Amino acid sequence: MRNSTRSEVDPFIVMDVMEAARRAEEAGRDIIHMEVGQPGTPAPQGARDALARAMADQPMGYTVALGLPALRARIAQLYGEWYDLDLNSDRVVITPGSSGAFILAFTALFDAGDRVGIGAPGYPSYRQILRALDLVPVDIETAAENRLQPVPADLTGQDLQGLMVASPANPSGTMLGRDDMSALIDAASAQGASFISDEIYHGIEYEAKAVTALEITDEAYVINSFSKYFSMTGWRVGWMVVPEDHVRVIERLAQNLFICPPHASQVAALAAMECHDELQANMDVYRANRALMLDGLPKAGFDRIAPPDGAFYVYADVSHLTDDSRAFAAEILDKAGVAVTPGLDFDPVRGAGTIRFSYARATADIKEGLARLARFMGDRGAA
Amino acid sequence: MRNSTRSEVDPFIVMDVMEAARRAEEAGRDIIHMEVGQPGTPAPQGARDALARAMADQPMGYTVALGLPALRARIAQLYGEWYDLDLNSDRVVITPGSSGAFILAFTALFDAGDRVGIGAPGYPSYRQILRALDLVPVDIETAAENRLQPVPADLTGQDLQGLMVASPANPSGTMLGRDDMSALIDAASAQGASFISDEIYHGIEYEAKAVTALEITDEAYVINSFSKYFSMTGWRVGWMVVPEDHVRVIERLAQNLFICPPHASQVAALAAMECHDELQANMDVYRANRALMLDGLPKAGFDRIAPPDGAFYVYADVSHLTDDSRAFAAEILDKAGVAVTPGLDFDPVRGAGTIRFSYARATADIKEGLARLARFMGDRGAA
Repeated sequence: MRNSTRSEVDPFIVMDVMEAARRAEEAGRDIIHMEVGQPGTPAPQGARDALARAMADQPMGYTVALGLPALRARIAQLYGEWYDLDLNSDRVVITPGSSGAFILAFTALFDAGDRVGIGAPGYPSYRQILRALDLVPVDIETAAENRLQPVPADLTGQDLQGLMVASPANPSGTMLGRDDMSALIDAASAQGASFISDEIYHGIEYEAKAVTALEITDEAYVINSFSKYFSMTGWRVGWMVVPEDHVRVIERLAQNLFICPPHASQVAALAAMECHDELQANMDVYRANRALMLDGLPKAGFDRIAPPDGAFYVYADVSHLTDDSRAFAAEILDKAGVAVTPGLDFDPVRGAGTIRFSYARATADIKEGLARLARFMGDRGAA
Repeated sequence: MRNSTRSEVDPFIVMDVMEAARRAEEAGRDIIHMEVGQPGTPAPQGARDALARAMADQPMGYTVALGLPALRARIAQLYGEWYDLDLNSDRVVITPGSSGAFILAFTALFDAGDRVGIGAPGYPSYRQILRALDLVPVDIETAAENRLQPVPADLTGQDLQGLMVASPANPSGTMLGRDDMSALIDAASAQGASFISDEIYHGIEYEAKAVTALEITDEAYVINSFSKYFSMTGWRVGWMVVPEDHVRVIERLAQNLFICPPHASQVAALAAMECHDELQANMDVYRANRALMLDGLPKAGFDRIAPPDGAFYVYADVSHLTDDSRAFAAEILDKAGVAVTPGLDFDPVRGAGTIRFSYARATADIKEGLARLARFMGDRGAA
């Protein structure tokens, strides 16, 4: 049996780091995990309690394809709470994680061969999912002076059928302001490109509230998730807001591609939305960790960074230290006992000179990690 | 925003029946559900208990993309228990339901434009998922004398890149014996078509154990699920066994397309595999229901049926009663208060003369449904 051409997907380079970290831990070493892209906290207690209750008295079979109506309604309400928007819950589609939303969006909007713009650096799976669906990912090299976000001029001559943006972005944590987002929406529309906004880090913001594309237009697909702010990565439940006249198409695709999102996860997600105190306590940790990172990384010698507006990452330019971020990450793991992500996963070209630090874990880990990084860089400079 | 061509997916015709049934129930009518394709029972108690325990003391973040190693190992063991096979657990991939397995299999094996044979009648989503992935579903009209399963002669001149079979099949419940399966595998191989075996109803068998394609060859993708025998539809967890040299490709696709299957569902599934008594009690219900159906349907006038080897459906030829199964199903719902599935969902051509009865629910419901069907047919004959 042969494999398809579209299945030729790049490996995650960070997997090598994670495997090396696992081996080091097995051998008895203590490793600080600054490579992981997920909270260390579980789903909120209220979410787990609600599921335990539901399991006792419901069969929990398939839900309808678009998800539990109560959850769709509660998410519509969130758009009122977070953005002061009045959103019709019919437009809210529950998905098997944001991953499921990407698959739905890409199949609903694009045919084989269509070109979809994605920012570089960016979430590596955009590129791979597009390829697996026989679409053409078009890397848009973003500029440091644009805080690593695309700008309208970047789209010129690209002949795109779609544009995908992320705010806050992974790996940079930078956000698009309302004017910048609006300009991108106009530029995409001008070349007939559908606009997809990845908003999965909304809720994890530090200086200002993130802007949703829905504040600017109803003609966009907006993707979000319970994984990050709601601390439910492993539950695989997210959502997507689509234009009203796309709901029926998405429903049919979702029925066939997924049948429904996990029922248990939907029940837990609905309850998670009421767990404000616990979620805000998580935010307090991220806020403290971020402050430690912004202080400690430059002191350690990683001074080419921009303060993240949201998410829980710092993306560092280390091109003055290495031209091989993969080898550099391996060296940091080996000598400092800190796992970090080589930038090559996010930017196949310039990522050789960048690495991503995650500060999603406990504050004690962040402190220890920064201390180790400082010692490592001190030894390295002295060597 | 325009939608893609590949998103033009047919609606499920049964959805009209389900919506009409819902309205009737809202209006106070009692409806017997013989349209549903899922057990009425919840996940086994042991599965729910295990999840409740795990939720109390684990963060339950992402698992690795291929799924929990303990679950993969336990499934490999199941192949020893069920088929006396020695299966390397490295070849077992946990998926977000069999739906996720179909997406992985189709993207791993086929490029845009490839032709994949599927039996008609068959599970409607095969066709729709293939279309959504820019593949070409090729309907293979199966014959009653072949018990609605494809035979090698059906493949002649089809120029297939893939062949998908299901045993026990939905909607017919018929199985492929070892020789028949083997002949199909050879015929597919002869034209260079990859072989995919949908075995999601394995475990729900009545006269003989179902044959897995893995008894015949390692060069096949075998798809299974916790939805049916393990009674876990809403949990969206299934698995796939692939050739050893395909594991790495599947792992990369799964990392990008899904990140991981739902963690909670994997924990529950692992425990479900030890809940023999409860699962066998479910089987006792199916067995009793099947006997009632095979006795009651002919007495009611639905006498063009074949005894199902497995699953929980009876597929009836009603072409002597109607040439419009959709209208006939609506009439049965309206006059008898029994919801059934029009055959058009499974066979776009000949399905106008067939309907599917499900007997997955409680025995009392089956008895009442059969009594209603008998009265309906009596009244109809008298009219």
